[in-house]
Amino acid sequence: MSSDAADELTFIHQITVRWSDCDPARIAYTGRIPYFALEAIDAWWEHTIGLDWYRLNVDEEIGTPFVHLSMDFRKTVTPRHKLFCFVKLIALGNSSVRFSVVGNQDNQLCFEGEFVEVFVDAAIHQKRGIPKKFRQVLVEKVVMLR
Amino acid sequence: MSSDAADELTFIHQITVRWSDCDPARIAYTGRIPYFALEAIDAWWEHTIGLDWYRLNVDEEIGTPFVHLSMDFRKTVTPRHKLFCFVKLIALGNSSVRFSVVGNQDNQLCFEGEFVEVFVDAAIHQKRGIPKKFRQVLVEKVVMLR
Amino acid sequence: MSSDAADELTFIHQITVRWSDCDPARIAYTGRIPYFALEAIDAWWEHTIGLDWYRLNVDEEIGTPFVHLSMDFRKTVTPRHKLFCFVKLIALGNSSVRFSVVGNQDNQLCFEGEFVEVFVDAAIHQKRGIPKKFRQVLVEKVVMLR
Amino acid sequence: MSSDAADELTFIHQITVRWSDCDPARIAYTGRIPYFALEAIDAWWEHTIGLDWYRLNVDEEIGTPFVHLSMDFRKTVTPRHKLFCFVKLIALGNSSVRFSVVGNQDNQLCFEGEFVEVFVDAAIHQKRGIPKKFRQVLVEKVVMLR
Repeated sequence: MSSDAADELTFIHQITVRWSDCDPARIAYTGRIPYFALEAIDAWWEHTIGLDWYRLNVDEEIGTPFVHLSMDFRKTVTPRHKLFCFVKLIALGNSSVRFSVVGNQDNQLCFEGEFVEVFVDAAIHQKRGIPKKFRQVLVEKVVMLR
Repeated sequence: MSSDAADELTFIHQITVRWSDCDPARIAYTGRIPYFALEAIDAWWEHTIGLDWYRLNVDEEIGTPFVHLSMDFRKTVTPRHKLFCFVKLIALGNSSVRFSVVGNQDNQLCFEGEFVEVFVDAAIHQKRGIPKKFRQVLVEKVVMLR
Repeated sequence: MSSDAADELTFIHQITVRWSDCDPARIAYTGRIPYFALEAIDAWWEHTIGLDWYRLNVDEEIGTPFVHLSMDFRKTVTPRHKLFCFVKLIALGNSSVRFSVVGNQDNQLCFEGEFVEVFVDAAIHQKRGIPKKFRQVLVEKVVMLR
Repeated sequence: MSSDAADELTFIHQITVRWSDCDPARIAYTGRIPYFALEAIDAWWEHTIGLDWYRLNVDEEIGTPFVHLSMDFRKTVTPRHKLFCFVKLIALGNSSVRFSVVGNQDNQLCFEGEFVEVFVDAAIHQKRGIPKKFRQVLVEKVVMLR
């Protein structure tokens, strides 16, 4: 895959960091950063399959709980610049999806992380395969990391 | 180190999970779980050196931003049982500390994670060594993972 | 009603205010204060009828959405002292309950507010009367404000 | 003042309500609604004087803590529609400002509230007059409520 193709598959979600996100160190509180990355993934779903987590769960009865997250924090996040989250789908299993989320402010890397969700039947909270109608869309969105 | 000694060095922090922590899937929202683990680490500091992050930052002008966190989610967290977070200091560098945090409800493993903080001068947000008075306490708290 | 009787009917809920609750002004963020008061009311329910909002909603299919809240902030809230929330039931309607919540730190008044919930059928989100089994308990808990 | 003039003075702030904002009743959690209204007021400041709370506090050393908030909830807030917050400055004192915030989804009233902030010297947290350079702007923004 060319670099351009990878760029096309990257979804960019913009966040306005606010006073309410910051702690007395005058930076976004550590616990808020996973929230930002998760919000970007929620927006990725809405953009990619037309359903955010709320509609996927409530209307389609499909849950997608997380089984893993990891983040490295490179630079503090503040309200001084817009936060851009770059979301890529980097692996697709039978019932799981793995995302890379990179956060930039003022063209500088602030954080990078990986997040894994599994598909479950929302009513009984049991693992299930990714629905066919979504898999067809997802398979074309996978970005191979070099 | 004997298993008993490791147990003595493990700090247990209890959390009441509430309605406000839960999402429409009727479980604690993914983004809340890092908050729980971070709260347990904040309580560990207060227990271990007598200063929580607020006092450490505001009174001692020492910041301890996180550079890494990773979590595996094994079982959903709900308000049905108390959440017990088991915090261990598992590595001590020149200016960094690494924690293990394990979350249990009803004697079942819910999540496990690792968290790394670095010491900085709060005023200028630059890395610094761990203050001597704290290092003496911390060095006796390190639990070797088997 | 004697002052002593009123005191007996007041439920006290203790909260540990943390670094994560504070904004760059080094005080608990305004938006966190309603959270504290709501947490105290959730704890009041658990104490009073043995069911918190989660169990009331999920197990009993009874929702209690808020229709009103108002708060006056008298003094900043910080992590330096425990926060004590004094909860009183001050009015009981056919399908509504009104609470007074007063927050103190270090024996000083920090905030006071009133909060009104209505009982609804959780499945259809429509107003309903307060269930008899709860009303019997609630009617004995009403504190007349002087 | 004509109705048109009042409309011109009303600032509209759009919020995307998300899964993470919702509780097991599948609606935005009560405690999130003040957050939404406060976010709209923070955006109003940025729009009106070019400084949000973060810059006002950190760069100008001016704090604006809240002394009062009250809200009536008319209809549940969900992720199904964008939330539009209509912010008006409705009173201007020597050191205080009072806002009206009305929240709409799908052209239906969801909540309405009033919020009062006072100007303080951020360093010592003591009340002060509204700075002249801001007063000149603010005085032209006051909407008389009929």
